[in-house]
Amino acid sequence: MSNIPPSHFSSLKVAMLAGGIGGAKLVLGFDRIMAPGHLTAIVNTGDDFTHFGLKICPDIDSVAYALAGLANKTYGWGLEGETWKVSDALEVFGAPTWFQLGDRDLATHLERTRLLRHGKKLSEVVDDFSERWGIASRILPMSNDEAPTLIETKAGVALPFQDYLVREKAQPVISRILLHGGYEPEVLPEALMAIEEADLVVIAPSNPWVSIDPILALPGVREALAEKYVTAVSPIIQGKAIKGPAAKMFAELGVQPSSLAVMRHYADILNMFVYDSSEKAYAAAEIPLRVLPVQMPTIMTDEADKVGLAQSILGQFADQIGAL
Amino acid sequence: MSNIPPSHFSSLKVAMLAGGIGGAKLVLGFDRIMAPGHLTAIVNTGDDFTHFGLKICPDIDSVAYALAGLANKTYGWGLEGETWKVSDALEVFGAPTWFQLGDRDLATHLERTRLLRHGKKLSEVVDDFSERWGIASRILPMSNDEAPTLIETKAGVALPFQDYLVREKAQPVISRILLHGGYEPEVLPEALMAIEEADLVVIAPSNPWVSIDPILALPGVREALAEKYVTAVSPIIQGKAIKGPAAKMFAELGVQPSSLAVMRHYADILNMFVYDSSEKAYAAAEIPLRVLPVQMPTIMTDEADKVGLAQSILGQFADQIGAL
Repeated sequence: MSNIPPSHFSSLKVAMLAGGIGGAKLVLGFDRIMAPGHLTAIVNTGDDFTHFGLKICPDIDSVAYALAGLANKTYGWGLEGETWKVSDALEVFGAPTWFQLGDRDLATHLERTRLLRHGKKLSEVVDDFSERWGIASRILPMSNDEAPTLIETKAGVALPFQDYLVREKAQPVISRILLHGGYEPEVLPEALMAIEEADLVVIAPSNPWVSIDPILALPGVREALAEKYVTAVSPIIQGKAIKGPAAKMFAELGVQPSSLAVMRHYADILNMFVYDSSEKAYAAAEIPLRVLPVQMPTIMTDEADKVGLAQSILGQFADQIGAL
Repeated sequence: MSNIPPSHFSSLKVAMLAGGIGGAKLVLGFDRIMAPGHLTAIVNTGDDFTHFGLKICPDIDSVAYALAGLANKTYGWGLEGETWKVSDALEVFGAPTWFQLGDRDLATHLERTRLLRHGKKLSEVVDDFSERWGIASRILPMSNDEAPTLIETKAGVALPFQDYLVREKAQPVISRILLHGGYEPEVLPEALMAIEEADLVVIAPSNPWVSIDPILALPGVREALAEKYVTAVSPIIQGKAIKGPAAKMFAELGVQPSSLAVMRHYADILNMFVYDSSEKAYAAAEIPLRVLPVQMPTIMTDEADKVGLAQSILGQFADQIGAL
């Protein structure tokens, strides 16, 4: 594995596909070593929903809060130093509190909702917020159109994703995942352009089913990726997800959860696949010829881990394509 | 003036027409002496607006917070013991903060917006909140339909009422008031019924132009009032409004602001007109024959003043119609 110092990456452009919590960690790692404006994070909006009339974008907020240095260091979601006055009042009032709304977080949702109602597009709002927060990388919603992920359960109900994940605590058994919820969203043109201009595309260690697939399913994305060097980082380690229901989803959808299963999920678009050093190495026969499997430490607990993983991935990429 | 003890009013039904701050004071006075369910406050919704995607009903909230014993004792608006975490975060974030949104107040707006989005009518939400808050009297929005009051200024702009009152601090010179903002709202049927069933209708000391006129202008309201004993309390004392821009509005609309002007504003529907004891008594020639002018202390600073004014009005009413 190369150990190229960050300055060597200064002309490189990276596009990442990312969901929320796990994705935000690696986006932060890349953000800290890339030249300003050379990293674009294309973020899932399948989790977005309207709650109390407010437009909430959990994945975009997780990524933006991380890059802005505002993210809560303990939970991986929400803001550091958050207070809960409104939430307490909702509780006293008997209003639903299953989705946690911190006071500072609410200011984000309120202002986003206000701007959207005044006719701004979601991508414009995200740009606006990134500027207010001094974020150097570009964060893009995968689409400005409605594209809700619906979780169809064995009980025959189609749950909006946050209802499934947070309200129902990811307990219901999944029968099917309905991407884009019956809408026909278009990929954000800037997102497609970022892929086209990228030297390297990184699929973050996010949930393949509900964080990455919604992006891949947008018309034009797979075609754009086919022209690119694409690497993915497994969110599954030793058969378990670091966070969230990814492993449970694999099992309920009939696939043994493993990093190998993640690799197969993406196999047709991958050039390199990164999985954790703690795992047993894949047998050669298990890997398609076009995919280079690479093991490295992928658990990211502090910022050094995040930067380290990003550097290792860039180093491997440099090795593969020769001199930068 | 009679000094009938509260128990004598136990069979009486009162309907009030009210706006926010001034109105809420007298509604509270009546609420405290009427039998449960015998007082109905029909409240102006012309000030209602959507801010940050949240439906805000300033007058209904002022009345409900007052009756629930939650109202801020210093300001006449908002909640006692309020905190401002979200507002502080909006400020830091560069979002507009001209309309003050306390944290506990926000919980009201969030839950109301949620219920409206789930298909409840505004009157159902108000009933629901009244029950949660243990309010014994009935609070009714004047209408479930959109009915925004627009303030047309000399500069030729039509401002939604809160933009005029709060954002612009009631500074622009008014040329015209557009009631119901181009909509054709229907009066809430329960409000009409409450008037029909009332022994006495009280027009609270609210702004005649923008708190009471929006109610009076709803089809059917004036006709229903014509059958009733109607009294109004002047919000103008010594040519000035206790609070708010009522006096300024009179002047800009070409009328010398005075309690007499208020009386004339309502003259065709009034049976009794209450104005402050500190004022010079009207000359007999200034008063239409059908209207009984009555002077009493009308400034309400504490709950005793509010209850006292309500009792005095009921006493006068009892004198007029003979034995109850």
